[in-house]
Amino acid sequence: MNGAQALIRTLVDHDVDVCFMNPGTSEMHFVAALDQVPEMRGVLALFEGVATGAADGYGRMAGRPAATLLHLGPGLGNGVANLHNARRAHTPVVNIVGDHATYHKAYDAQLESDIDAVASNVSPGFVRRTQRADDVVADALDALTAAIGPPGQVATLILPADASWSDTTVTSGPSRPVREAPVDVDRVEAVAKVLRSGEPVALFVGGRVVRGDALTRAGAVCAATGAKLLCETFPARLERGAGRVAVERLGYLAEFATAQLDGLAHLVLVDAASPVSFFAYPGKASDLVPEGCAVHELAGPADDAPGALAALAELVGAVAGDAVLQPPGRPDAPSGELTAQTVCAALGALLPEGAIVSDEGNTTGLFAAGATAGAPPHDWLCLTGGAIGQGLPVAVGAAVACPDRRVVAFESDGSALYTLQSWWTMASEGLDVTTILLNNGSYAVLNMELDRVGAEASGPRAKRMLRLDPPALDFVALANGMGVPATRATTADELVDQLGRSLATPGPSVVEAIVPSII
Amino acid sequence: MNGAQALIRTLVDHDVDVCFMNPGTSEMHFVAALDQVPEMRGVLALFEGVATGAADGYGRMAGRPAATLLHLGPGLGNGVANLHNARRAHTPVVNIVGDHATYHKAYDAQLESDIDAVASNVSPGFVRRTQRADDVVADALDALTAAIGPPGQVATLILPADASWSDTTVTSGPSRPVREAPVDVDRVEAVAKVLRSGEPVALFVGGRVVRGDALTRAGAVCAATGAKLLCETFPARLERGAGRVAVERLGYLAEFATAQLDGLAHLVLVDAASPVSFFAYPGKASDLVPEGCAVHELAGPADDAPGALAALAELVGAVAGDAVLQPPGRPDAPSGELTAQTVCAALGALLPEGAIVSDEGNTTGLFAAGATAGAPPHDWLCLTGGAIGQGLPVAVGAAVACPDRRVVAFESDGSALYTLQSWWTMASEGLDVTTILLNNGSYAVLNMELDRVGAEASGPRAKRMLRLDPPALDFVALANGMGVPATRATTADELVDQLGRSLATPGPSVVEAIVPSII
Repeated sequence: MNGAQALIRTLVDHDVDVCFMNPGTSEMHFVAALDQVPEMRGVLALFEGVATGAADGYGRMAGRPAATLLHLGPGLGNGVANLHNARRAHTPVVNIVGDHATYHKAYDAQLESDIDAVASNVSPGFVRRTQRADDVVADALDALTAAIGPPGQVATLILPADASWSDTTVTSGPSRPVREAPVDVDRVEAVAKVLRSGEPVALFVGGRVVRGDALTRAGAVCAATGAKLLCETFPARLERGAGRVAVERLGYLAEFATAQLDGLAHLVLVDAASPVSFFAYPGKASDLVPEGCAVHELAGPADDAPGALAALAELVGAVAGDAVLQPPGRPDAPSGELTAQTVCAALGALLPEGAIVSDEGNTTGLFAAGATAGAPPHDWLCLTGGAIGQGLPVAVGAAVACPDRRVVAFESDGSALYTLQSWWTMASEGLDVTTILLNNGSYAVLNMELDRVGAEASGPRAKRMLRLDPPALDFVALANGMGVPATRATTADELVDQLGRSLATPGPSVVEAIVPSII
Repeated sequence: MNGAQALIRTLVDHDVDVCFMNPGTSEMHFVAALDQVPEMRGVLALFEGVATGAADGYGRMAGRPAATLLHLGPGLGNGVANLHNARRAHTPVVNIVGDHATYHKAYDAQLESDIDAVASNVSPGFVRRTQRADDVVADALDALTAAIGPPGQVATLILPADASWSDTTVTSGPSRPVREAPVDVDRVEAVAKVLRSGEPVALFVGGRVVRGDALTRAGAVCAATGAKLLCETFPARLERGAGRVAVERLGYLAEFATAQLDGLAHLVLVDAASPVSFFAYPGKASDLVPEGCAVHELAGPADDAPGALAALAELVGAVAGDAVLQPPGRPDAPSGELTAQTVCAALGALLPEGAIVSDEGNTTGLFAAGATAGAPPHDWLCLTGGAIGQGLPVAVGAAVACPDRRVVAFESDGSALYTLQSWWTMASEGLDVTTILLNNGSYAVLNMELDRVGAEASGPRAKRMLRLDPPALDFVALANGMGVPATRATTADELVDQLGRSLATPGPSVVEAIVPSII
């Protein structure tokens, strides 16, 4: 058995059985090994950012890591943006980067570069360079353990070509050690005391506690204690909809977030970082916690946050059935003009039960949260790291992880352009993904930011850098070019009709919605 | 004046007057300043790899740097692959990466990451993090000096938002120091001795000595001494065609390169690295220099290589007029089946005088060098670093640098997919670029490599990872979607007709050539 076969065998033996890849010559033995270890599903992406974003989406939905396979430093570079989002989401990813054979590196061949340096950006917690085939299994297990955490993370395994092609007799390792993260009872008691203080408190939740039992418990704790329930601005995977605990997301704009946090005496963090402004703005605070508000951490990403929340719920006498649940309710299917509001209403009117929404709707999507709040239960995946170009790849990964559910990529034009090769993978794999492509012809968020940062009155030369036309992008043509059927809606009625058909049709399709910018 | 305005003013005062950009919020003051300093031309790209590749193409053709403007770590990541190619080409690039405000970094906001680590991959020689607006001018001048070299390089300037937006009175700096690179007379004399030895010698040229007077001198030295003239496999910018010194490029495949180098007693490097195998292969040597062949370096990228060559030419009594020049000659316009051969023949038959060919033709392009050797004088830009997705962006930059010349992007399907957003920029800027899109439906080079690396008999699961269909990519639709007119050729006659029209039509257009894979 060669190193590549041992690696893939080890991965599949530990439930890593999907690899999103864009391989090159140095990865050919890994690719060849797919026929020897057929339990591993190789999913080809035509750009690395698709592969890494898909691994993120997969990990968020499957709760276990996918592998990636990337080609040396440039391939890793192309994957950085979506690995950054995965890092911020604490998604487990086994990020495999092929490299030259160990002895070849000294020759500084054309593709030689400092892979480790780039990897340290997205994998600060784990970068391992395998030295020989005999080490592959142990290194893979270490990478897998690191990836799963807690905290979940991107673990990078750099795989020299000769470690792949050389034979090894070391083809299995010990059981993967599980990292135990005990609940810190002192912290639970301290938070319980805060909740009983009678002062204004909010639970600020994120990560693993915005879904499943943990979310229910968070709602129950708030019901029992009168605390406010808030969640991070861009959760990795939020379970929401009718019958679930309704949780208010902190606003992206500091002005809104400040209003939401106003008057709090205590903010309790549960698997969420203390809220800060997304960007700095001249003369405005970076820290969004109001003055005089104390911040307490119940549990962080490296802890057993769901366990800590369960302990807290018990301590404060929270009863699951007391949590305030979202009542069902949908907007009417909209008619007339196609606007940001009517696009979001159409989504709310039609979103199927069990849908997974990959949300990169940005400015046009402003009204989506409200319009879908009472829709049947669904998952909402957000832009965790702010690196745009996430939405379509994450939809790919979510669809691979959950083949029985409809995935909706709610996607802005500017963001889609970074990783539109995702559509090809959706078609090649026959994934049930509906893309709603929001075409307003501009980087609308930057038009807003240009004003917000206090830039001097900007002129036509600056404004040109924020527009996506001329020439106007034709996303129907782009989707067709990638092998995906597509339609264009210019009225709300057309959108409702086309969206309904897309949601009912197996495989991928794209509905381009021509909307005016809200900015 | 704020820091952003001071930066742009400094750049334009030193002849850096084009900035290829994909900005975000932290770069909004830079963008706003485009209206205050209108001498700077901002060129918007819809993906960072387009911006960085365009800066590479611009630098290769203009002989002076363009600037880039990228958005934090993820934006730099997306630009890494083509910055890698620029690094390998020794192209001067002032690579500006916006970052959070200095005081905001401590808050670890969503887009925070280790930009410096990623930058060190592509800018090992110069990464500067500006600390305040008062330092912007001095830092920009240092970056510019480093970028220009010699050696030319990617110099990264990390620009925090508050250094951009804060006011400064430091708005001009000293004249930019020029790095002197004297000629090493001892090395020149040693090489002259080698050339007079009577033993088999080859000049192995690259970088700045495969064009202009330097190339003529290299040819004259060979004519005077009987040395063989070879050039690096992937030169950054090769001047060739009728009436120019014909130079044989070293083959990509080690088997071919070995044959070309066979029998040499001496290899003299002139602005070129000693030849090594592109990848390692089991049981094959990485070093391509034959046993017993001595390697001598006349001058490297950090030296005055053209000056050293001029000194050598004088010392060996080389006469410019004695250099062997390429006679004119074109293939006939092909007819019948469209194949790799007939595509290349069509290019050779129609290539206009003064054209710039951005070559990412890969396997289909195998016959292009031969077919165009005697075409009217033109420039040939190669994939210097092996990071695919270079061809279209480099064509963008070359067209911006040389608005009076026709640029031909000779581009493979798989490679085009990494940076196809280039077409939008060609359209938005009205650039005279003809793309010949070579569609063979596969990563053909990997099918070849899969065999060459000695991978075990591979099966259908491996082979699927190397195919670009199903679904078939429709590049006419993709180009149209990006706002570029396109046609499809399925016969040689159609290609000749469509290529002729494209070359004669101002602005960008795409001709998709459907070809069988040669593998």
